[in-house]
Amino acid sequence: MAIDLQQEPHVRDLVARTRDFIESHVLPIEDRHGGDIEAAGGDTLRVQLQQAAREAGVFAPHAPTEYGGHGLSMTERAPVFEAGGYSLFGPTALHIGAPDEGNIHMLALIADARQREEFLAPLARGEVRSAFAMTEPAPGAGSDPAALTTAAEQVAGGWRISGTKHFITGADGAGFFIIMARTEGAPGDRGGATMFLAPADSDGLTVGRHITTLDRAMIGGHCEVTFDELFVPDENVLGEVGQGYAGAQVRLGPARMTHVMRWLGAARRAHDIAVDYAVRRRGFGSRLGDLGMVQKMIADNEIDIAATRALLMQACHELDSGGTADDATSIAKTFGAEAVGRIVDNAMQICGGLGMSEDLPLARLSREVRPFRVYDGPSEVHRWAIAKRAVRRARTAAEKEQQ
Amino acid sequence: MAIDLQQEPHVRDLVARTRDFIESHVLPIEDRHGGDIEAAGGDTLRVQLQQAAREAGVFAPHAPTEYGGHGLSMTERAPVFEAGGYSLFGPTALHIGAPDEGNIHMLALIADARQREEFLAPLARGEVRSAFAMTEPAPGAGSDPAALTTAAEQVAGGWRISGTKHFITGADGAGFFIIMARTEGAPGDRGGATMFLAPADSDGLTVGRHITTLDRAMIGGHCEVTFDELFVPDENVLGEVGQGYAGAQVRLGPARMTHVMRWLGAARRAHDIAVDYAVRRRGFGSRLGDLGMVQKMIADNEIDIAATRALLMQACHELDSGGTADDATSIAKTFGAEAVGRIVDNAMQICGGLGMSEDLPLARLSREVRPFRVYDGPSEVHRWAIAKRAVRRARTAAEKEQQ
Amino acid sequence: MAIDLQQEPHVRDLVARTRDFIESHVLPIEDRHGGDIEAAGGDTLRVQLQQAAREAGVFAPHAPTEYGGHGLSMTERAPVFEAGGYSLFGPTALHIGAPDEGNIHMLALIADARQREEFLAPLARGEVRSAFAMTEPAPGAGSDPAALTTAAEQVAGGWRISGTKHFITGADGAGFFIIMARTEGAPGDRGGATMFLAPADSDGLTVGRHITTLDRAMIGGHCEVTFDELFVPDENVLGEVGQGYAGAQVRLGPARMTHVMRWLGAARRAHDIAVDYAVRRRGFGSRLGDLGMVQKMIADNEIDIAATRALLMQACHELDSGGTADDATSIAKTFGAEAVGRIVDNAMQICGGLGMSEDLPLARLSREVRPFRVYDGPSEVHRWAIAKRAVRRARTAAEKEQQ
Amino acid sequence: MAIDLQQEPHVRDLVARTRDFIESHVLPIEDRHGGDIEAAGGDTLRVQLQQAAREAGVFAPHAPTEYGGHGLSMTERAPVFEAGGYSLFGPTALHIGAPDEGNIHMLALIADARQREEFLAPLARGEVRSAFAMTEPAPGAGSDPAALTTAAEQVAGGWRISGTKHFITGADGAGFFIIMARTEGAPGDRGGATMFLAPADSDGLTVGRHITTLDRAMIGGHCEVTFDELFVPDENVLGEVGQGYAGAQVRLGPARMTHVMRWLGAARRAHDIAVDYAVRRRGFGSRLGDLGMVQKMIADNEIDIAATRALLMQACHELDSGGTADDATSIAKTFGAEAVGRIVDNAMQICGGLGMSEDLPLARLSREVRPFRVYDGPSEVHRWAIAKRAVRRARTAAEKEQQ
Repeated sequence: MAIDLQQEPHVRDLVARTRDFIESHVLPIEDRHGGDIEAAGGDTLRVQLQQAAREAGVFAPHAPTEYGGHGLSMTERAPVFEAGGYSLFGPTALHIGAPDEGNIHMLALIADARQREEFLAPLARGEVRSAFAMTEPAPGAGSDPAALTTAAEQVAGGWRISGTKHFITGADGAGFFIIMARTEGAPGDRGGATMFLAPADSDGLTVGRHITTLDRAMIGGHCEVTFDELFVPDENVLGEVGQGYAGAQVRLGPARMTHVMRWLGAARRAHDIAVDYAVRRRGFGSRLGDLGMVQKMIADNEIDIAATRALLMQACHELDSGGTADDATSIAKTFGAEAVGRIVDNAMQICGGLGMSEDLPLARLSREVRPFRVYDGPSEVHRWAIAKRAVRRARTAAEKEQQ
Repeated sequence: MAIDLQQEPHVRDLVARTRDFIESHVLPIEDRHGGDIEAAGGDTLRVQLQQAAREAGVFAPHAPTEYGGHGLSMTERAPVFEAGGYSLFGPTALHIGAPDEGNIHMLALIADARQREEFLAPLARGEVRSAFAMTEPAPGAGSDPAALTTAAEQVAGGWRISGTKHFITGADGAGFFIIMARTEGAPGDRGGATMFLAPADSDGLTVGRHITTLDRAMIGGHCEVTFDELFVPDENVLGEVGQGYAGAQVRLGPARMTHVMRWLGAARRAHDIAVDYAVRRRGFGSRLGDLGMVQKMIADNEIDIAATRALLMQACHELDSGGTADDATSIAKTFGAEAVGRIVDNAMQICGGLGMSEDLPLARLSREVRPFRVYDGPSEVHRWAIAKRAVRRARTAAEKEQQ
Repeated sequence: MAIDLQQEPHVRDLVARTRDFIESHVLPIEDRHGGDIEAAGGDTLRVQLQQAAREAGVFAPHAPTEYGGHGLSMTERAPVFEAGGYSLFGPTALHIGAPDEGNIHMLALIADARQREEFLAPLARGEVRSAFAMTEPAPGAGSDPAALTTAAEQVAGGWRISGTKHFITGADGAGFFIIMARTEGAPGDRGGATMFLAPADSDGLTVGRHITTLDRAMIGGHCEVTFDELFVPDENVLGEVGQGYAGAQVRLGPARMTHVMRWLGAARRAHDIAVDYAVRRRGFGSRLGDLGMVQKMIADNEIDIAATRALLMQACHELDSGGTADDATSIAKTFGAEAVGRIVDNAMQICGGLGMSEDLPLARLSREVRPFRVYDGPSEVHRWAIAKRAVRRARTAAEKEQQ
Repeated sequence: MAIDLQQEPHVRDLVARTRDFIESHVLPIEDRHGGDIEAAGGDTLRVQLQQAAREAGVFAPHAPTEYGGHGLSMTERAPVFEAGGYSLFGPTALHIGAPDEGNIHMLALIADARQREEFLAPLARGEVRSAFAMTEPAPGAGSDPAALTTAAEQVAGGWRISGTKHFITGADGAGFFIIMARTEGAPGDRGGATMFLAPADSDGLTVGRHITTLDRAMIGGHCEVTFDELFVPDENVLGEVGQGYAGAQVRLGPARMTHVMRWLGAARRAHDIAVDYAVRRRGFGSRLGDLGMVQKMIADNEIDIAATRALLMQACHELDSGGTADDATSIAKTFGAEAVGRIVDNAMQICGGLGMSEDLPLARLSREVRPFRVYDGPSEVHRWAIAKRAVRRARTAAEKEQQ
């Protein structure tokens, strides 16, 4: 509630309309298909839902206004994306799902004019989907980006890329790929990476099998993708050669935060269902919601929701102020991913046997939120980065003191 | 390891043979079918696996020797059932899965000679499956047994039972049902319950829809079952009239413990997979298993495995000594169900993206173990019972002191 | 850091000066006396420290400017109080400690002109201390205010109060008391309470023994106080007769938040000490701060600090906007009290044996912060209140739907 | 309870007598002195209490019978030591406290006949106290024994030892010291350590300041000790030269377990006090012990007590069977130390303000148990060792598979 009060009227209005849209247009479809977006229609469904979102005036809240979006800042996105995440199909419907949302954000910041026209414009308008091809199977780039093995070799007029990626979200059906490849150095070296843009129908680009995961709600799956001497012309280098990770950096922090926003919406839905159940169900001579151990779970969820939101707003303020917010986004992501898991788990527990069944969407939500503690950087890698920065600050202070 | 050293040679030998059997005969089938037992063949598969188990001399370790079982005590079952639970299909193969295993245990203790012949013998030999019909949809008997609504009315020569049950494990395909129904009092009253035996093909007994749940590995599903004036002759009253809960009590404690044994096996498998992964995979210039945060998860799992085992053995000793072990089994169940969840969750986290995928069995195991914090009494109900007993003991002591 | 950027320059300046003052004037004294404020000089020390704070321009940041304070809003207090709480003696030095700080806040809002002159003015200027006498020994008002037993009987020209209070912070040496007494109804009834102002030297007011507690840093101790036919004239009724709890409400939310601010400062100090130790100390062939399990504790602390701050700012925004912020302050208090405990505990653990010793201030800090999970409402009571509100909202929604 | 049933009658009898003795002779003295053993009389008190214990037939349950002890195995010690640990002064009274108890255990196993006569016999009979001088200030041997810096140089007829130790428990007033010193290699090298026996009045041995720590109940404090060319004759080398750590190993595992036994007793006392309080106190219209969130804390304590006991018995069985039980003792120590902390913390929380005060012994108990997560190996070091062994087992299995 409080989170909205601090927002401008036009944002609060968009939040309200987004909630209505999700409730009336999106949740019923999700429920009918048990949250499996491919089973529910895949891209056909996406096109229909996005058209409905356009008509309801809630489409692409984050996209630049010149492409029909609402141009919201990070702080403004928070309540809108949370409202969108309330349904697992909401991000697809509003066109705020991973990876498109993060790709739009990055392209708007670093693509040149021609690339904007060719890649960003149709993406922002929802005419195509996209994929971000960075993660590689072992021993390549996973949590540790320095392990990058996909290599781009310079040739006349461009580059030839060879390598294998996996867990590439949205790859199946994407219109184009943003590819991270090594243009310098060897696996294990930091730096030396470059980003490339490549249409999906390029020769040498193959989308392989879907890796089946716990989650089912991301359109286009998590796929293996191989590049076999894929040619990319110089004009499709995104950002500068050798600056791939620096360029991706503008995407990373914000994308982490929008992930948290959406999953917070999903967690809030689980919590709402559980509290409603606790109000209606009786046991041991009492309303379930009046039993102390149930109250504890409800209160813990309220606390987790509030803390996730508060950390999110803090990080968004920093991002909107122009900072990279490395610490704030790592903290909000790590806390948020774990909080969201706890919230859904408590919700399931409150609903007992029913919570384990598909008669309620809780089991489905639990499958969807679990991977978030790994996707976008495992909690352990974020904690390592947070601690490293804290130790570095203390070491600098200790060295200064000794002088 | 230690757990085996305290066992007699014949038990240690059975453990070893069970491990081999699971490894060679059961795990490959489970993996081929992603842990979905119905997809893997259901009862057809069950019959094949049980025949293989008989041939390997590992069938029905808990069943009375007169019916071809090994007649193990609770303490002896622990390592054998853990070895069996290592595969999700192991309990079916060894005939030690819920609810048959608990039903065999109870019938061996309280059925009369005729009932033993008609119901226990074919069940123990694996010729039929069975179901235990107690749980009811709201506002009936769930966590609170006093809410029992299914009613049995006395008629000439027997009883007529009407009511609805749900989450009845193994109902689809069961040869007979053990039914808990109220023969006295009204919903809300403690006591007044009686157990009845009824063949599955009785008039008025209908197995309804499968309730789809997170878990997929229990044969015969979790079903709705309705009784519409189902007639049960007096000879099929199990135990005494009005003593249904007292009778079920002999099943409850042991069944909780065998659940823990099996799930501990599943958790150990998840842990083994994760440690093996941590040994093979490298990141950040180090073997994954040498990174402190991964070591913490590995050590936490080792501690949880050891503590679950130790609590289990304690409770089994009490049960084998003739006690009801109410506290010990509630404690081991509550701790074990939560520990098993933590272990599998850590294992997934260690394996990162792969841990979220079906390329490893971890995601599957996480779906299977989650409901155990609800099934067989939610953690909250067990904690409530544990605390009530502690408070009662203290109150008695305080009153004594005042005299 | 980020927290400061959002503040006005004059607040950031005050934060910086407060940090300097604490570092140079207050920490050395605290360390010399092991955090025991009575041993360090009690009120004599207080007077000296407050004079130094006045000279440094950091005295009474929250008090009305007309009495020499800085008149900061709740949001502005947050970073200043956190800087003050960095030393256990900081709140006394800055005159922002409990209960004076909360009493100043309340009196500024609800005292009449004469009461402001007689009680608030000298309190705000630091000329006297005060106490808030609400909590009673069992079976009186503790966590449950309805149990209030101290009674005020109306007599000519005023009231006669009799009853016993305990855990009255700052009572020994206080110049006056704010007393909560029942003017209507019987123990167990909600409402019927009134607040009274009484000089400490009034007949019938006796400060009894200090209740020795884990914490040692609050001036004036936690005392028993008895009222034996204490006469209070009508003019010293604070707020309206029968509206005692409503009046205290304006104190409650803000006082909870300033508690969190101060303890967060103490926790940050513990964390700083631990990270500094982890930077300097080596073990197992590595800097301590580079070991994964130590990094985990450091990162967890950073997350807890950030989340506490973020929840605090959220609640302060709501309070500054004129809301009662019941949920937001309960949430920030509950989370903050637990987070502060975890942070100090991790800090101790990182420092090993030294962390258990008085060679570092960590053991002292651990003693001081523990009671905060009980003082100002135990976590359980706050969780109960949070859950009750969530359930009430859901019930209202469910009822509306049924119409 | 169950723990006793598995014991022989003479052990159960000793447990019962120990409980009585603690209740009637020891608790009243502890309570009178707030758990500060030096304030309560130090060695004078010790001599009196031990005499009373002798008369009650409960003295030195673990010491060899030839020296007047009861000669109990590890498994048999568990319930007796738990009963002794119920009072903080119990271990001193029964002569089962650290470090004497561990030293007796080790000397009985590795001292030669003359050393037994000169050192073990008077120690076992309670005529003198002893100390175990291993831990060193940074950068010496702390958690990492390889860092050992105290050096013993071979001279005619013996050794000259120089170095500094700290946190040497019981040093002040000890009759003799067991000293770990390096006889080979340099700090950082594994191995090369030797143990020496030295009377406290030897030239060159100085007991320095007491390091004040959170805990107050260990007699003789935690002291700094320096060796300045301390001469030790060859006959006082304990075990073999260069085999210091191997020799200490026989002490390590068992000493960890007896620590857990004693602290479990202390935790059980805290729990008993809290449950008793929850039975007597009312709030919110209910007995405190009937409120769900209090029940959760009570149940969690019961679970933690049971799990600690079960892990303890498991490790003791392994030790009694002749194993080193490295894993089992690390697991029981790590879990037990953390469980004991949780139990006491919950007990304090249940008792609210009173729990923070010295009106109950809970705050005192919380101070005493906290260091146990660091003493005897911090939880992090034990987890590291547990994980290393698990990884090594998996690596061996993986290598075997590859062959």
